[in-house]
Amino acid sequence: MKFNVKADLNYSTFEPAVIIVNVHAARGSQVILEENFIVTGDQHFTEVASFPDQNRLIRINTNSAGNIHCSYQAVVDNAFSVVNCENATPVGAWWLAPDVLCYLNPSRYCQSDKLFRLATHQFGKINNDFEKVLAITEWIYSNVEYLSGSTNAETSAYDTVTQQAGVCRDFAHLGIALCRALTIPARYCAVYAYQLVPQDFHACFEAFIAGRWIIFDATKLVPLNGLVRIAIGRDAADTAVANLFGNVMGNSVQVDSQVGDDGFQPYYYLSGRCEGISYA
Amino acid sequence: MKFNVKADLNYSTFEPAVIIVNVHAARGSQVILEENFIVTGDQHFTEVASFPDQNRLIRINTNSAGNIHCSYQAVVDNAFSVVNCENATPVGAWWLAPDVLCYLNPSRYCQSDKLFRLATHQFGKINNDFEKVLAITEWIYSNVEYLSGSTNAETSAYDTVTQQAGVCRDFAHLGIALCRALTIPARYCAVYAYQLVPQDFHACFEAFIAGRWIIFDATKLVPLNGLVRIAIGRDAADTAVANLFGNVMGNSVQVDSQVGDDGFQPYYYLSGRCEGISYA
Amino acid sequence: MKFNVKADLNYSTFEPAVIIVNVHAARGSQVILEENFIVTGDQHFTEVASFPDQNRLIRINTNSAGNIHCSYQAVVDNAFSVVNCENATPVGAWWLAPDVLCYLNPSRYCQSDKLFRLATHQFGKINNDFEKVLAITEWIYSNVEYLSGSTNAETSAYDTVTQQAGVCRDFAHLGIALCRALTIPARYCAVYAYQLVPQDFHACFEAFIAGRWIIFDATKLVPLNGLVRIAIGRDAADTAVANLFGNVMGNSVQVDSQVGDDGFQPYYYLSGRCEGISYA
Amino acid sequence: MKFNVKADLNYSTFEPAVIIVNVHAARGSQVILEENFIVTGDQHFTEVASFPDQNRLIRINTNSAGNIHCSYQAVVDNAFSVVNCENATPVGAWWLAPDVLCYLNPSRYCQSDKLFRLATHQFGKINNDFEKVLAITEWIYSNVEYLSGSTNAETSAYDTVTQQAGVCRDFAHLGIALCRALTIPARYCAVYAYQLVPQDFHACFEAFIAGRWIIFDATKLVPLNGLVRIAIGRDAADTAVANLFGNVMGNSVQVDSQVGDDGFQPYYYLSGRCEGISYA
Repeated sequence: MKFNVKADLNYSTFEPAVIIVNVHAARGSQVILEENFIVTGDQHFTEVASFPDQNRLIRINTNSAGNIHCSYQAVVDNAFSVVNCENATPVGAWWLAPDVLCYLNPSRYCQSDKLFRLATHQFGKINNDFEKVLAITEWIYSNVEYLSGSTNAETSAYDTVTQQAGVCRDFAHLGIALCRALTIPARYCAVYAYQLVPQDFHACFEAFIAGRWIIFDATKLVPLNGLVRIAIGRDAADTAVANLFGNVMGNSVQVDSQVGDDGFQPYYYLSGRCEGISYA
Repeated sequence: MKFNVKADLNYSTFEPAVIIVNVHAARGSQVILEENFIVTGDQHFTEVASFPDQNRLIRINTNSAGNIHCSYQAVVDNAFSVVNCENATPVGAWWLAPDVLCYLNPSRYCQSDKLFRLATHQFGKINNDFEKVLAITEWIYSNVEYLSGSTNAETSAYDTVTQQAGVCRDFAHLGIALCRALTIPARYCAVYAYQLVPQDFHACFEAFIAGRWIIFDATKLVPLNGLVRIAIGRDAADTAVANLFGNVMGNSVQVDSQVGDDGFQPYYYLSGRCEGISYA
Repeated sequence: MKFNVKADLNYSTFEPAVIIVNVHAARGSQVILEENFIVTGDQHFTEVASFPDQNRLIRINTNSAGNIHCSYQAVVDNAFSVVNCENATPVGAWWLAPDVLCYLNPSRYCQSDKLFRLATHQFGKINNDFEKVLAITEWIYSNVEYLSGSTNAETSAYDTVTQQAGVCRDFAHLGIALCRALTIPARYCAVYAYQLVPQDFHACFEAFIAGRWIIFDATKLVPLNGLVRIAIGRDAADTAVANLFGNVMGNSVQVDSQVGDDGFQPYYYLSGRCEGISYA
Repeated sequence: MKFNVKADLNYSTFEPAVIIVNVHAARGSQVILEENFIVTGDQHFTEVASFPDQNRLIRINTNSAGNIHCSYQAVVDNAFSVVNCENATPVGAWWLAPDVLCYLNPSRYCQSDKLFRLATHQFGKINNDFEKVLAITEWIYSNVEYLSGSTNAETSAYDTVTQQAGVCRDFAHLGIALCRALTIPARYCAVYAYQLVPQDFHACFEAFIAGRWIIFDATKLVPLNGLVRIAIGRDAADTAVANLFGNVMGNSVQVDSQVGDDGFQPYYYLSGRCEGISYA
């Protein structure tokens, strides 16, 4: 289904600096039908693709102090598929592809090595991997309060599991950490999210189930079929909207996502219905 | 120069399990002249290459309970080069290749995002990047006590910077975190190390200086030209000697590294001589 | 009921040093019927009472290098009382005595300020304070694995709540932190524990319920009526068996506790029976 | 010297609640010449003295929802003394009084047990205890940036030593932790501070040197002879301006401190001049 997505970013630089922006719709199974990116002034910029080739980083070289405005617009067919997960028995480590294995490793914000007992105790007895991850998201949803401003850029899953408050980023980190602790590869996914109120960048996570990357969102804030993928990575450290090098200050961010086709039917997971959505 | 390296690993499994072993000499600029890997019994195993194509993981499928013995032997020409770093002015973020950029991100054991002020305060005024990283290693060497058993698998750079004790792994993590905090890409490097006493797996780190990955070792335990590379990664989470899936217990590890050519001259960095060693 | 308790401690000093030992039965409601304390050699020692006057610290001044052996023996009537807690509605902050109020504050190992949401979410709906704390101990008992060697002197309640393994000290710290997060004053209690296998120093915690300090033990390892109190404090930082100043090394500890009267009936709490045991 | 101090606090309660306020000038060597405390409405309040008898807590019982305004005014002769510390050789653990010993223990925000190596390495060679603590304050002043809003109620010395930013509370916690790691008892001291710009509550710490509690302030923001003591404790957990029980919200705080005598000469420590100021 088609979505019109937009992002406007404003920065002030106080000296020549470099800004790496990651707001473009990712390459992969989704189809970018139209796309436009403008940087004000005569700033030099180039696109670089980051591993695993899906994230698209725009590197902006600012020659002088001043204000910089970046504007991205795209029409994207998000092209997800619905995956039957009824037989999602755990994928043994024997079968995981090399480029999936690294998503078992703990990362900056997802210290899965510290959550082994908790994860096993809480979710270890669920056999079906889809239901296991769905139970993780339900547990996070029930135990963690969505509270803007309660966390910061240093907050990790190890904090959130105990402090029980956070935003979408924290919900995703905790989901990822619990999956990895149970030997389910999991990765962070930054998205445009239709029907997110108020509009902003959103974060979910993907778990590797039955040989596919299935999307999960422990915040339950948006339908799972209205996402446009921006970036994937081990955690938020890999998928920052912007990395600033030099004396640069972010001023404002505006995001929008609108459906471009008729007949959007919001899709949420139901316990008992073993069907996952995959964007990969 | 040629080195004969060996690793013997012993495990007990109590049920069918999977062991992923990472002791093979890495692919890359070094040349593997001979190589032999044996797993006792009729265990099925395969080699998988992990990103970035250099690490070689051996995946062993154990069909039943029992003892497993893995034995690796190789003759490797470590083929490093000496890099003149006299003009190693900082590589701006504008120039970093996409596959290098990710080594600026914080990772599980290298929380560079928390060390920004300390790194800038301590090392920010050094202009030459080689001298900057050398100063980091000197600072770690002077402030952190090498003390076996003082740390564990959860210890990170954020702990070590304050608690000031650790082993090679901790020295490397702290070096990496400080580099990244200064916008110098850095990565973890697991190696066989000639003249390490007692023999064991060793860890160093590589910093991206003047367009090359230069090796550093804040422990100063071994000459920098006697290393055979096993694995690189963001930190120890990516380069574990073994990852165990299922009920498996590690019993013992034996490592050896001997020089196979005449005329080995131990090479250590000297402050004032801006020459780094690169294995990449 | 009478108990015969013993503790033998051995240290090596390498220079003149000070050792402060805390193994004497505490003053308070329990009655010390006989007592004997010996330090080998001609070491000078004195008893100092620490706040709140119940803990008894023995300060030993070692004049020279050598081995030091301390031996404590006592016969103590532990003199607890059984407190009916059926009407243990929360004691409002209005009614707490000044010397109780400080046991609401977070401490080194009991970061109650970080556990507010978790505690409220998990236990907030239980009205009776005795049942609330009993539910805390049941939760800890069910979720945390008693595992010798899994933690160290730096492990705190914030770690244990997530990592879910520990020893008596960790169980007590977590219990205390959860109580304080719920505005129930709680303190650490080091004890001799009859029927502890193997014999060692033990730790419990006391919660202030219905105007009395009631003992709780989330490990469920020993009957609650077989304890002889050694020390109370905010957490383990206040009640160390020994604090060593100078170059001193602890060698060994031996502890024993035997009942001295007939007819000991082990007493454990039962859910539904609102009766607590108080040693204060 | 006389100081006129004031504090105005405003709260909103949404149900009956308890507020414990700690803004009164502490008892001890300073002399409270005049004092006035008003709580708006017909709120019931009482004063309770907390250990160690110096802190004065006002407990307010709010009967209903509404706004509460507390206003404190006092004239205090701060009555400090200047202590010659030229011979401040370390006070051995043998000589510390029991009520001082507890200030060697780690506490919630001062994890001295984790800073032993750093403290010893950095300051261990300084013999005079006054100069040692002065060097600690200089080190904090040089390495930690005073930055409003950079920390929160959970920030501890273990964070500040690495992250190197904070406010007066964080500076005090780090000073305390480093002292304790060097076997110098240290405690937190909340004060009114003349010449603090802008006016607010301030925090310092006291170290036990040459048998006296000597005041230190690593922020260097105010003269050390213009302080009026409000509370002492192990750290900020013991000396909160207000503890709120129930649904209460703090709205605003206003603080003032003016000198009431002529001839105030600001007093700061000088390295080389071994003279400390003691308020105890």
